[in-house]
Amino acid sequence: MSLETLGTQRCFGGWLQRLRHRSTTVDCDMTFAVYLPPQAERGEKLPVLYWLSGLTCTDENFMQKAGAQRLAAELGLILVAPDTSPRGPDVPGDPDGAWDFGHGAGFYVNATQAPWSRHYRMHDYVVHELPALIEAHFPASDRRGISGHSMGGHGALVCALRNPRSYRSVSAFAPIVNPMRCPWGEKAFSRYLGEDREHWRQWDACALLADTTERLPLLVDQGDKDGFLVEQLKPEALRAAANAAGHPLALRLQPGYDHSYYFIASFIDDHLRHHARALADR
Amino acid sequence: MSLETLGTQRCFGGWLQRLRHRSTTVDCDMTFAVYLPPQAERGEKLPVLYWLSGLTCTDENFMQKAGAQRLAAELGLILVAPDTSPRGPDVPGDPDGAWDFGHGAGFYVNATQAPWSRHYRMHDYVVHELPALIEAHFPASDRRGISGHSMGGHGALVCALRNPRSYRSVSAFAPIVNPMRCPWGEKAFSRYLGEDREHWRQWDACALLADTTERLPLLVDQGDKDGFLVEQLKPEALRAAANAAGHPLALRLQPGYDHSYYFIASFIDDHLRHHARALADR
Repeated sequence: MSLETLGTQRCFGGWLQRLRHRSTTVDCDMTFAVYLPPQAERGEKLPVLYWLSGLTCTDENFMQKAGAQRLAAELGLILVAPDTSPRGPDVPGDPDGAWDFGHGAGFYVNATQAPWSRHYRMHDYVVHELPALIEAHFPASDRRGISGHSMGGHGALVCALRNPRSYRSVSAFAPIVNPMRCPWGEKAFSRYLGEDREHWRQWDACALLADTTERLPLLVDQGDKDGFLVEQLKPEALRAAANAAGHPLALRLQPGYDHSYYFIASFIDDHLRHHARALADR
Repeated sequence: MSLETLGTQRCFGGWLQRLRHRSTTVDCDMTFAVYLPPQAERGEKLPVLYWLSGLTCTDENFMQKAGAQRLAAELGLILVAPDTSPRGPDVPGDPDGAWDFGHGAGFYVNATQAPWSRHYRMHDYVVHELPALIEAHFPASDRRGISGHSMGGHGALVCALRNPRSYRSVSAFAPIVNPMRCPWGEKAFSRYLGEDREHWRQWDACALLADTTERLPLLVDQGDKDGFLVEQLKPEALRAAANAAGHPLALRLQPGYDHSYYFIASFIDDHLRHHARALADR
């Protein structure tokens, strides 16, 4: 597993790096960003927060716009932001060039349908290959938290609910909580996973909540002026599922906020503290 | 003076707005961004920090990447970010399409040479027209600070040194301190201002320091791994000029930092506090 460094920049006393590697899981080159707080230079193994971005994003959006490095440097948290899909000339994208499927829109599932199933295995990349890489190459412990935005909020919830032993904490901003029942999710799942909707349940946070016996507390922020709220995001479905399962959920509707990184930046500190508490070495 | 609102977004309990207006000074439509902290809703007049961005930037870079809104919301500071030049199909740009002159590269001077002199009057726009607009349309006092990055750091220093009664505080990140003696400045000044270099002195922070009798303390941060340090930025010239004039200067060389917004974000809080102290109502 060799890593190519694309860039290194000093940031809040630590280092931001962009790196590229050949992923065996998604069978193409993948780029990711990692923020190493100042504590990383002491050599101790630090906890890691994985951040999954939303539709159309790359590894760069979160690092450039969320303002998370300031508090991560204080808390001694490593931040890791993967890309949102496999990419490259050999990776098929949306046949119509749409932005909500294919490149930039991997939906953090393991696709089962041709031609997607060869590369679109973002769940296994995020849950297995990437943490193994991070823990091998950086002073990173296996104390992992996961968070994300929109499609990436869906990804964070699903990765944590499917793999509760792999994560100590989870949170999300404006997540797609019920992709089985919204246009973005139905389009992506019908292509990546096929038309058998029963198979979709294992990739849907609301459905997974009904099945899991683990109780990983969820922190979710959602702006009430988010333009995707009613048709795509439907946080009330998550509340109903958590209530029905008796699963701990702090769902906060933030008045006046939209779907942008200004919303994320406004509340990222709360999420970092939520993760840091759970990730403290005990 | 009518203002067209292009966007309004909630951010750290306040509001970020993008606005467009017809500027009489630069004779074209101009877009700017303003961040109103939560205190603005109480109606009291708040101090304003003007931010001038660098080459190729627009009103958006600072608001998206510097992470300044968090502390501005706490301190009750309004932030205003103008564009970096006049723009539009009627505004001449660099004849060769270069990025260091013309559109996105107004250098905050009042051009005297055709064809630039009609639109490229960014100094008067920043110092006169924009504050008048801000103070007429928002709960903004005439307590003004000014800061900026690179070309915009040059702009902040020059605006403050030329108009010390208009600003209570000034700071800069990686400023072009001596444009008369660096390739970016020599290219821009020879076109905007003509070949008489004596005329350039009134637009050069180092030259202005020798002439001013006002003593507005300067805070300047400069990364020592900035790729433009040696050829373009030359902070030692500012130190020499400040020393010769007996002008207060805090020039901090920040080890390992480059020219990017990650550098700015890492130290923006220090600058905001520097300005807030000077802008406190007394």
